[in-house]
Amino acid sequence: MKVKRSERLIDITYYLMEHPHKLVPLTLFAKRYESAKSSISEDLTIIKETFTKRGLGFLETVPGAAGGVRYVPKMTDEDIAAFIDELCEELNHSKRLLPGGYVYLSDMLGEPKWLRKIGRAIASKYMDKEVDSVMTVATKGVPIAQSVASYLNVPFVIVRRDSKVTEGSTVSINYVSGSSSDRVEKMELSRRSLEMGSKVVIVDDFLKGGGTVNGMISLIEEFNSEVVGATVIAENIFKGERSVTDYTSLLKVENVNSQDRTIEVVPGNFLQKGI
Amino acid sequence: MKVKRSERLIDITYYLMEHPHKLVPLTLFAKRYESAKSSISEDLTIIKETFTKRGLGFLETVPGAAGGVRYVPKMTDEDIAAFIDELCEELNHSKRLLPGGYVYLSDMLGEPKWLRKIGRAIASKYMDKEVDSVMTVATKGVPIAQSVASYLNVPFVIVRRDSKVTEGSTVSINYVSGSSSDRVEKMELSRRSLEMGSKVVIVDDFLKGGGTVNGMISLIEEFNSEVVGATVIAENIFKGERSVTDYTSLLKVENVNSQDRTIEVVPGNFLQKGI
Repeated sequence: MKVKRSERLIDITYYLMEHPHKLVPLTLFAKRYESAKSSISEDLTIIKETFTKRGLGFLETVPGAAGGVRYVPKMTDEDIAAFIDELCEELNHSKRLLPGGYVYLSDMLGEPKWLRKIGRAIASKYMDKEVDSVMTVATKGVPIAQSVASYLNVPFVIVRRDSKVTEGSTVSINYVSGSSSDRVEKMELSRRSLEMGSKVVIVDDFLKGGGTVNGMISLIEEFNSEVVGATVIAENIFKGERSVTDYTSLLKVENVNSQDRTIEVVPGNFLQKGI
Repeated sequence: MKVKRSERLIDITYYLMEHPHKLVPLTLFAKRYESAKSSISEDLTIIKETFTKRGLGFLETVPGAAGGVRYVPKMTDEDIAAFIDELCEELNHSKRLLPGGYVYLSDMLGEPKWLRKIGRAIASKYMDKEVDSVMTVATKGVPIAQSVASYLNVPFVIVRRDSKVTEGSTVSINYVSGSSSDRVEKMELSRRSLEMGSKVVIVDDFLKGGGTVNGMISLIEEFNSEVVGATVIAENIFKGERSVTDYTSLLKVENVNSQDRTIEVVPGNFLQKGI
């Protein structure tokens, strides 16, 4: 029995949201609902208009036999700017100030509501690029990587500072950690978790001197792979020259006064560098 | 201007998927679309029928002034059973065998596709219960906790074995780790990340002797909070008495033969213990 338009619209919306960034052939829906391709095309036009109107993302239609429809949950620059303002407001509180000029973020990185927005915003920058994998370093970066990866619909890989028995063989590198101390540390990645020749997006929570991001770049090179870009939630105050310059940040910690317990968080360079 | 039914169905579906497990008053939609509540009720009936028919979850309607609609993305027992079989098939491969009888899972725990299913399946067990928070231990459990938490739409908290500078003050406990060795280790949780009196679901990747889960239970007690349940992806082979008995597992590693490099993974007790 044919399926009604109303039911199709609901089910297609659900399906597209569960399969972002993936080309879905129209025949999949035509078979699923025993409907003509022309009806499915009309459904997709309605969905496309609604998504665009409501800022839910974009529907790309690829014509031809190998074609289909792709849901790209990209945010508009305006929506990202509004979200970054929302983040600033949330973070500009003395209660978030931690020793050493760090900002307490862990609660937000454990809130599905915030993670969805952070993930969608960061992913928006990479949606028009070819990406095979999202990389981060344990542990703070993991929720960010997971959320970004879910919107790009690609796997994410976790670089570790300690070896785990359940990982199998690993590739490790040494990197210069910390700002002034020039400590040399080790980070490693399971050999199975990243294919050679991958295109990788790096994400993390904070960037101070850039040592960790730099370490991940070296590790990506060890896998003969390519860095598509690096985005952090917040760049911290850092005096001196950073070992990484080519990154984007949603936020920038501009001022921290431990005595007054004041903190000033402003938008980072995320939107300046264009999407 | 009033919004057409087709547009409303798409936007409500999107909204409900982004806000699972949350009571949404009908007035929110009525205002959003400048439509009568009776029209919204009809929309919700159509969505409810479609969700049920296609196994996408359930729509609960709560009548009265304080009422509204709640999307519960619960899976049916049949769908969970089918998913567990799919997991078994994926894991019953010699290439997944790691030294010590461990099973390589990291790739799946980095795949949005698998994480959505794992999260939704585990969350299904707790959807009819009051849950304030999902807890896990760094690092392997984090993606699982994040996915379960997103379907329950509650925060997740990460217990750590190492102290982090950006965490603020923490509460720590000692626990007996490992099977035979009786090593005593430390785990800690940021004081800010869990409110006193919370109801907590524990999740993790593997359970061997149960020391880690037991540690988390002690930690939850330190926060005067309550354990709602504990679920792991897989229970490993363990000779001896486990320090935890009240847990559920999606899978059970039944046999591991390192010489033949064979592995046998079967369904765990997840469905036996009822949903």
